[in-house]
Amino acid sequence: MKKQLNVVKIGGNIIDDDLNLFVFLSLFADLKGAKILIHGGGKIATDLAAKLDVPQVMIEGRRYTDGNTLKIVTMVYAGLINKTIVARLQFLECNSLGLTGVDANLVEAHQRPRKPLDYGYVAEIDKINISVITSLLAQGLTPIIAPITHDGNGQLLNVNADTMAQEIAVSLAKMYDVQLIYSFEKEGVLIDINDKNSVIRSLNPPYYKQLKQQNKIFDGMIPKLDNAFKAIEQGIKAVIIGNAKKLDQLIKGQSGTKIEK
Amino acid sequence: MKKQLNVVKIGGNIIDDDLNLFVFLSLFADLKGAKILIHGGGKIATDLAAKLDVPQVMIEGRRYTDGNTLKIVTMVYAGLINKTIVARLQFLECNSLGLTGVDANLVEAHQRPRKPLDYGYVAEIDKINISVITSLLAQGLTPIIAPITHDGNGQLLNVNADTMAQEIAVSLAKMYDVQLIYSFEKEGVLIDINDKNSVIRSLNPPYYKQLKQQNKIFDGMIPKLDNAFKAIEQGIKAVIIGNAKKLDQLIKGQSGTKIEK
Repeated sequence: MKKQLNVVKIGGNIIDDDLNLFVFLSLFADLKGAKILIHGGGKIATDLAAKLDVPQVMIEGRRYTDGNTLKIVTMVYAGLINKTIVARLQFLECNSLGLTGVDANLVEAHQRPRKPLDYGYVAEIDKINISVITSLLAQGLTPIIAPITHDGNGQLLNVNADTMAQEIAVSLAKMYDVQLIYSFEKEGVLIDINDKNSVIRSLNPPYYKQLKQQNKIFDGMIPKLDNAFKAIEQGIKAVIIGNAKKLDQLIKGQSGTKIEK
Repeated sequence: MKKQLNVVKIGGNIIDDDLNLFVFLSLFADLKGAKILIHGGGKIATDLAAKLDVPQVMIEGRRYTDGNTLKIVTMVYAGLINKTIVARLQFLECNSLGLTGVDANLVEAHQRPRKPLDYGYVAEIDKINISVITSLLAQGLTPIIAPITHDGNGQLLNVNADTMAQEIAVSLAKMYDVQLIYSFEKEGVLIDINDKNSVIRSLNPPYYKQLKQQNKIFDGMIPKLDNAFKAIEQGIKAVIIGNAKKLDQLIKGQSGTKIEK
């Protein structure tokens, strides 16, 4: 029988708020068994770019990563946020270790093609080398992963944290029973975007198809959900989307939206 | 018989210069056998502090680390410099992994007492937990360590890279035959501070005592050399001080100053 593994992605808005982050990390530290945390960036990088007069260009809702912005996100994600989280988890007696995709060549990638849209130094993932993660987990260490990687030619790259979380989770599904948890400030996938209480508790492929045909899924959620179902097809047991402050309940399937076969 | 291990400290001035850094990293990547790199900070943190209007106060030649400076050094040392080095080493086919003292609780420390001189968020090292390093080395991975650690209560701390290198090297001396190499832009310990060619090639305790009595050791070098001899007493085979561009020769004892029993 395979061991359980929870791969938790924590969203940017939680990281921006010191108290929310600490509440979340306390819940994360208390989770039993093997676990991995993947964190996003939040507003800290945007604020630092403003202070340094590095203009931030958005292309269709995504940050254009020029050379200076790459330095900023490397400093903020891999340096400040990653080490702040690890130090707090050490205090919470969760022995953890910070990584990026560069370390032990965890995430092999290339720069996303500049056409049709140029996003700058942004990664497309080629391969995950999971041996460093399985070795750390076997030692009882918890990997804390920042969304920075490289192209193998010495060039650092910015990588989408959601995508990285999914690729890492899928790669580990051969060795573990993996749950992938997207935790953020919202309650889950809503059936009515204007009603916070309309969380869909459970989604499987036929129900998802039905909701899509009825136009009951908010457009912005469709790519995320399509990805989640793809992850399920690739061997992940469940994808859970919900509130970071209820991480313990999310893990147990008592809160948020649970996506499974 | 114990295996050889080279613990290499690279100084700030080399890190500031892209070409010098690449030359050094190429030599480091080519070193055979187990190795560890510990890097300092250089001018990048000072430049970033200036851009962010964070005044840098020096107390007896050392940086006062206030809260904002701590954020800056964490971003620059643990983020930008550490990940830049690891990405370049990956390109050079040296499979490496970045760490700080926070990760896997590698360096246990407390904040240096605020009296007689207050240096702010600066660490005094209590204990090195080497298991993460020995495990990485056993997997053929090279640890790249940034001089940031924590106090166990969630507080990050700035730590002197020379001191950290020495403490880590001493902790590993039970398991490995350790050489500790301090590499920087100079040729070694000079007998005449004004003559670059007056490098002392070899120092042992009696010769060091003699040179000190004759006032032939530059005052600024005495604390460093006293520390090196302390490390030798604690089980390190040799401490080598010399030019980063000659790392291969330093390791073989063909350049720089070699300190041994």
